[in-house]
Amino acid sequence: MADRVLVIGADAAGMSAASQALRTAKAAGRDLDVIAVDRGHWTSYSACGIPYWIGGDVASPGALVARTPEEHRANGIDVRLLTEAVAIDTEAGWVEVVDHAAGRRDRFGYDQLVIATGAAPLRPDVPGADAAGIYGVQTLDDGGAVIAHLGGDVRRAVVVGAGYIGLEMAEALVRRGLSVTVVDRAPEPMNTLDPDLGTQVHAAMERMGMDVVTSAAVTAFETGPGGVTAVVTDAGTFPADIVVLGTGVRPATDLARAAGLPLGPSGGLRTDDTQRVADGVWAAGDCVETWDRVRRDWVHVPLGTHANKQGRVLGTNLGGGAARFPGIVGTALTKVCDLELARTGLTEGDAVEAGLDHVAVTIESTTRSGYLPGAEPITVKMVAERPTGRLLGAQIVGRDDSAKRIDVCAMALWTELTVGELAMTDLAYAPPFSSVWDPVQIAARKAADRL
Amino acid sequence: MADRVLVIGADAAGMSAASQALRTAKAAGRDLDVIAVDRGHWTSYSACGIPYWIGGDVASPGALVARTPEEHRANGIDVRLLTEAVAIDTEAGWVEVVDHAAGRRDRFGYDQLVIATGAAPLRPDVPGADAAGIYGVQTLDDGGAVIAHLGGDVRRAVVVGAGYIGLEMAEALVRRGLSVTVVDRAPEPMNTLDPDLGTQVHAAMERMGMDVVTSAAVTAFETGPGGVTAVVTDAGTFPADIVVLGTGVRPATDLARAAGLPLGPSGGLRTDDTQRVADGVWAAGDCVETWDRVRRDWVHVPLGTHANKQGRVLGTNLGGGAARFPGIVGTALTKVCDLELARTGLTEGDAVEAGLDHVAVTIESTTRSGYLPGAEPITVKMVAERPTGRLLGAQIVGRDDSAKRIDVCAMALWTELTVGELAMTDLAYAPPFSSVWDPVQIAARKAADRL
Repeated sequence: MADRVLVIGADAAGMSAASQALRTAKAAGRDLDVIAVDRGHWTSYSACGIPYWIGGDVASPGALVARTPEEHRANGIDVRLLTEAVAIDTEAGWVEVVDHAAGRRDRFGYDQLVIATGAAPLRPDVPGADAAGIYGVQTLDDGGAVIAHLGGDVRRAVVVGAGYIGLEMAEALVRRGLSVTVVDRAPEPMNTLDPDLGTQVHAAMERMGMDVVTSAAVTAFETGPGGVTAVVTDAGTFPADIVVLGTGVRPATDLARAAGLPLGPSGGLRTDDTQRVADGVWAAGDCVETWDRVRRDWVHVPLGTHANKQGRVLGTNLGGGAARFPGIVGTALTKVCDLELARTGLTEGDAVEAGLDHVAVTIESTTRSGYLPGAEPITVKMVAERPTGRLLGAQIVGRDDSAKRIDVCAMALWTELTVGELAMTDLAYAPPFSSVWDPVQIAARKAADRL
Repeated sequence: MADRVLVIGADAAGMSAASQALRTAKAAGRDLDVIAVDRGHWTSYSACGIPYWIGGDVASPGALVARTPEEHRANGIDVRLLTEAVAIDTEAGWVEVVDHAAGRRDRFGYDQLVIATGAAPLRPDVPGADAAGIYGVQTLDDGGAVIAHLGGDVRRAVVVGAGYIGLEMAEALVRRGLSVTVVDRAPEPMNTLDPDLGTQVHAAMERMGMDVVTSAAVTAFETGPGGVTAVVTDAGTFPADIVVLGTGVRPATDLARAAGLPLGPSGGLRTDDTQRVADGVWAAGDCVETWDRVRRDWVHVPLGTHANKQGRVLGTNLGGGAARFPGIVGTALTKVCDLELARTGLTEGDAVEAGLDHVAVTIESTTRSGYLPGAEPITVKMVAERPTGRLLGAQIVGRDDSAKRIDVCAMALWTELTVGELAMTDLAYAPPFSSVWDPVQIAARKAADRL
């Protein structure tokens, strides 16, 4: 009889795992019986695309779906939506689920369990935080709820938290015509960058007409009969017809915790590099901790790109092949208003916190040869270890064609290059694409000189 | 007394070397006496920018100059323009020069000699090739000659050679309003790419209104009293009011050859990795051969990016410091009409020629998440060694935001990653910048699967 595989969570990690497991097993002439359950309405969608749907660049949530339930079913995966896993028994090998459509409980036995339960938005622990009109944005269903709330009377939005999701949502709401205030605890927005670069993000937000309130902690939400009416902070009270939370997420691992599975300090599941948690139990995506090759430590970094890769590795191994997830270096980027921003590895603040002897340099250059029209400003900040010269991290802020250059730094971190060697690598140059020394290499050269 | 340094050639390599030598010596408390001679009118300019000047994006040649003679002089370099080196005696330690302005010969003694004589355009060895109206485009003075030739009666241009310079010049001439025919010996334009990608370049050229004639060898130039009148090929005769040559360059090493200095098979000077040629003799830039880390062989790759880096390495060593030029991997890119194109490492054709057991894969993807406006097509071709999986090379052709991704492949070649590992590296993802698997990683994954 074919092994029964049960997948909890039908988004990127879970469905990548399921598809790859079937593909791998089939190539080896084996059958798998795969069931995937999800409490929501959707499969395999781009959660990262939600702000672009809300902002109007994407017409419908369906456009964000990479593969529909029907397509997965045609590939031999038994997808059950509106079906919520509520308990796991790893000893007996079953999962208890509630079928919300039929209103009944079931137990599904399994031989192999895949946990891909994702992450859940954090809510500030202050009065009123559960009021209507306050939205975390993590799932397509969340995105739908925000859109349903928007309309004629909804004019003022407050976004709490100026990280990736907060800023992308703030921009989306400006584009919907709302008046938007962004409040954040840190001295500058985007505190995954050093504050000296955060000031550029701050200015870009103001250029787009946002009201930016920094160093402000939320102390309460004021509410009325219709739900939230204002966000109260220690730097003032801001009226709100809608509130969006960009205050981070936590791994959605309550089920796994209750089942006694191993969790790290972040609450994420601990896997080995095959994505295995325990005998017959696997996990991938936003619910796991990931090995950071630069920090040499486990971290929780909920990003679709890791979820997809981990899901594929998981599926290969579950299906009888061999693959390993080699970790991450902490790369991320986004576009906020007219500014692109990116980071990888450690910021200067991270290096200080880790007690590493280091140098940090910042350079200003242009995205193409300065004599061409369309040459835009770009700032690159680079941190290197002293005395080894090993690159520790990089940050980029600039206009069009800036941020994706972070990939070169990510590759350098991956292979532990020194800044001296990075300055001499063979990067592509032609006037419409770069200065003759790529901005990344100008920064690396300056860091090497400083060492 | 300070060492006398004589630099022949005052463009990227020579002046980078001179500036860095002074800087390094000064930091060590030493003096250098630096003279730089050049037969042309300019110093430290972007030769790569010439097509953009001719095409009208850049208003004047001065805009292409990174550092003027006056600026160099203010930094302590004795720059002598219109001064042509005509003989080198390495035994006695002098260089004979002709001062074209003053019309006299001089001998400059030296303790350290820097040869940065660049490259010279190749001319087809056919009748009429030296006629007026036929231009190689290598120096700012060449660019000025082309612009001087253009005018009311000059309507039809033929560009011979469809490589980087040929295509950039063809586009510049179209933008100047000329009717442009491009003739090339190869079956498809841009034969540093495999022909299956060259077809996309061909189509882009036709979209811009160029007449593209491939598999055509030039057999003669027809001439009249005013110079060239037509280009004769074995595929037809093409009337021309101006002809631009994009038929490659050769290292300008006649002087070095006459002085008995070591040259490789390409005619380029052979240096060690400190850019030293012999005792007291150094060289950098388009006149040298360079170590190719992928081919594991010496190659002649005349590009400004290498010239600048080699010049800096040379100057550091000459000035008493320590630096090495670690070689190249064969990265290049350009933009032709509405198409970006890039390559690094080996093409499939190169791998076949080298007799390497390999797999080649090609994928189609989009430059950003497919559901966003502005998601443009991108093609990535990747070649990997069998059975090791080592990346051998990559080629990219696509619309906006495609070609610079080649840098990730260049970094992977640099550190000899396998395609399997490249597929798992931590590249930046957000919907406006990439699909969730970067197109480069989709190609790497497919290559790994194929292995």
